[in-house]
Amino acid sequence: MPLDPIQFLTEYSRFPSVSTDSAYAEGMTGARQYMMKQLEAFGFAVEEIATPKHPIILAERGPDREDVPHVILYGHYDVQPADPFELWSSPAFEPEVRDGRIYGRGTADNKGPQAVQLTALSRLLEKDPELPLRLTFLIEGEEEMGSPSFPGFLEKYGQRLSKADMILLSDTGSPGPEQIVVTTGLRGMLGLEVTVSGPRTDLHSGISGGPVLNPIAALARICASLHDEDGRVNVPGFYDAVVEPSDWEREELSKLGVTEEQYRDMLGVPAFKHVGGNKPFELIRFFPTLEFNGIGGGYQGEGSKTIIPSKAFVKITCRLVPDQDEADIGEKVRQAILERCPPEVRIDVKVTEGGSPYFVAPPGRPNTDPAMSPVLAKAFEAAEVSIGEAFGKRPIFLREGGSVPIIRQLKEATGLDSLMIGLFTPMDNLHAPDESFGLEMMEKGIDAYEGILRRLAYGK
Amino acid sequence: MPLDPIQFLTEYSRFPSVSTDSAYAEGMTGARQYMMKQLEAFGFAVEEIATPKHPIILAERGPDREDVPHVILYGHYDVQPADPFELWSSPAFEPEVRDGRIYGRGTADNKGPQAVQLTALSRLLEKDPELPLRLTFLIEGEEEMGSPSFPGFLEKYGQRLSKADMILLSDTGSPGPEQIVVTTGLRGMLGLEVTVSGPRTDLHSGISGGPVLNPIAALARICASLHDEDGRVNVPGFYDAVVEPSDWEREELSKLGVTEEQYRDMLGVPAFKHVGGNKPFELIRFFPTLEFNGIGGGYQGEGSKTIIPSKAFVKITCRLVPDQDEADIGEKVRQAILERCPPEVRIDVKVTEGGSPYFVAPPGRPNTDPAMSPVLAKAFEAAEVSIGEAFGKRPIFLREGGSVPIIRQLKEATGLDSLMIGLFTPMDNLHAPDESFGLEMMEKGIDAYEGILRRLAYGK
Repeated sequence: MPLDPIQFLTEYSRFPSVSTDSAYAEGMTGARQYMMKQLEAFGFAVEEIATPKHPIILAERGPDREDVPHVILYGHYDVQPADPFELWSSPAFEPEVRDGRIYGRGTADNKGPQAVQLTALSRLLEKDPELPLRLTFLIEGEEEMGSPSFPGFLEKYGQRLSKADMILLSDTGSPGPEQIVVTTGLRGMLGLEVTVSGPRTDLHSGISGGPVLNPIAALARICASLHDEDGRVNVPGFYDAVVEPSDWEREELSKLGVTEEQYRDMLGVPAFKHVGGNKPFELIRFFPTLEFNGIGGGYQGEGSKTIIPSKAFVKITCRLVPDQDEADIGEKVRQAILERCPPEVRIDVKVTEGGSPYFVAPPGRPNTDPAMSPVLAKAFEAAEVSIGEAFGKRPIFLREGGSVPIIRQLKEATGLDSLMIGLFTPMDNLHAPDESFGLEMMEKGIDAYEGILRRLAYGK
Repeated sequence: MPLDPIQFLTEYSRFPSVSTDSAYAEGMTGARQYMMKQLEAFGFAVEEIATPKHPIILAERGPDREDVPHVILYGHYDVQPADPFELWSSPAFEPEVRDGRIYGRGTADNKGPQAVQLTALSRLLEKDPELPLRLTFLIEGEEEMGSPSFPGFLEKYGQRLSKADMILLSDTGSPGPEQIVVTTGLRGMLGLEVTVSGPRTDLHSGISGGPVLNPIAALARICASLHDEDGRVNVPGFYDAVVEPSDWEREELSKLGVTEEQYRDMLGVPAFKHVGGNKPFELIRFFPTLEFNGIGGGYQGEGSKTIIPSKAFVKITCRLVPDQDEADIGEKVRQAILERCPPEVRIDVKVTEGGSPYFVAPPGRPNTDPAMSPVLAKAFEAAEVSIGEAFGKRPIFLREGGSVPIIRQLKEATGLDSLMIGLFTPMDNLHAPDESFGLEMMEKGIDAYEGILRRLAYGK
């Protein structure tokens, strides 16, 4: 019997699988075991691959023959932290369907797309249990923490995975069911954590205030220095390796069907910053950023506390575009921060793991890789047709602003490129309170996936 | 029987009387009732004066006659918040004596000095129950929140208090028992809370990152703009009303007996900021500041969360010197912040209550008030002699960096000036973890207070 995607997604999203916070270890185990049980039920040979942190699910089915296309389906069972919990309309880990959407942390990122993939497959298997397609589900548990164990996993399993023809996944976005995006590129990412320390302990701001440089003031100065007036990242060499987008990419972007005003109102910001004179969607898809994800220091409670705090910290992530190199940019940002720290405070800058950017042009473009796998080329065409049928409009092929660092790592370790079908929409509140996944997107996504897998298996 | 100051202080400090946090209402009541009971035991007529927040203790004893000096003894029974609790060597609200000090929140600020005052008085009363001195204890419960109810209290009780001759208190500091400071001025204070809002909810920093101005970036830019490179406050007109210190003040400061290096090492900072070319102790005692007491925004938990936060905030306090006006400076800082907010975010700036600075020159100086009360003039002289006897060295007369806003308010409402004996030391960790009060300071302070009160009562 084919999978009921809503029931599956509800059950799967009930596990609070927050990978970054060790308090959620049980939710991680629960989500992983639930998914493994499902895959076993569909005849997959399922392995749980241990890593230094959260295990990876590797599940295979179908004939292991040269003439049968071999597709790796990627997903991740971990989710972002759900706080601030008080901003959720219904509990983050009690999925609820209302107004055509299913709400809950992870319902979109990335458990919903896995419901789409698994349901599409279950429908094909219902019609043909001998489906002539080799499939490998590769589902990791550290995507939301930057996949720290993935390189180690690839060292051991890269050779085995390289026997496949391509990777197929949905961990990227589209404007909505009316316009699906097939993602041709992802921004890379790197993280930094900066801590500024001043006096040994918090000081009374009256008794000691004057000659002591406040760590918050020092940190604010450093943060403020990292962008210029225009909003560009003010770090020497930051933009040196940035490749301007191709003409066909700008043309595809023009078909996106969302206006700047609509997007601005949806986000609720008074105005956009046209960094370097670029348009908002260009800034997201073609240019790098340096963002402050969190800042903290001193007294944050009710009322006031008249102190000079001992410490202050900021969490930074950069999004990178081709051909910026993660290690190179990390070092440049680190150096800039260190150089800008005044002598009256101490500073510690940690660069955390990330990933370099990724790009693949569809077949038939001026910058298409001449060595593209025939199965991938066929999959791009199948996606264009199947998405057109399911959603009533051909997809556009476009880079996106998010990062899936492992796509680049998979390419480097296995030589495989990825076909990325965007199933998230701006309505989904990814990484934010009230995350949700649209039921229309889910149903049409299942149809599209069914079409792609069918065309890969049977050639039509 | 005279009071046992350690027992009194231990019992008094066990009440967690944090006025700024409503979770500590019980501790506030406990501390207040404990103090009232003590005062009753020494024959005071005790009143509990209701205010919109925390009641004020008003307690009087002694002959109500023109020829008997009338001294108001000021103190406060509230304390600063004690977090971060994990940085305390012993629990904040379980006072503990070790190595010649008593540790616990409030043991110094301001419960210890009240132990000194009450013990000195109890010794005099032991010798002479008819002590010819009228005394009014005025002990408030909102000092650590900027005394918001005090002006309202003064409207009702100012007339009655104005019949006294002077105010005597210890809510200020000295370098240590080897050099006591009689405080001739206090910095004023004002608070601001700034909140910057961007997108309606936290956003995914990949999917939306580029055209959205990050509220932390906007706030950091605003904060960084509030000081110049040199560390001076960069707000138009901020320094306009600042009066340079008199020669005798600079001379007194030179006797402080603490070097810049000693003070720097004690605070644990790599270097001092010589704002405007001034020396560290001059910056604390003669110049105003703008400090960031706390900053927060976005994700501050374990690991990372790749968001553009919806909001970020900062808590600011300014310390003011004569003749800066609290309301004037508050408006200038508010305007500067509003003007510097970029159009891509929204901003809210709240100015919270504070107090203007205060100054009184001792008798015989070029800038002594010719209308100084004879009792106050005598008290200054008694303090010089009594402190000299108790501590082995004459005190120095000097302004300090802290704020006791009510001193200025008392002056305005009653015409009374204050004699402030500094009993806190830099070792006391005021407003910080491991606050403590030195037992040597306590014992010698009791002797000095006994001498001052005795000389006021008997003229010798």
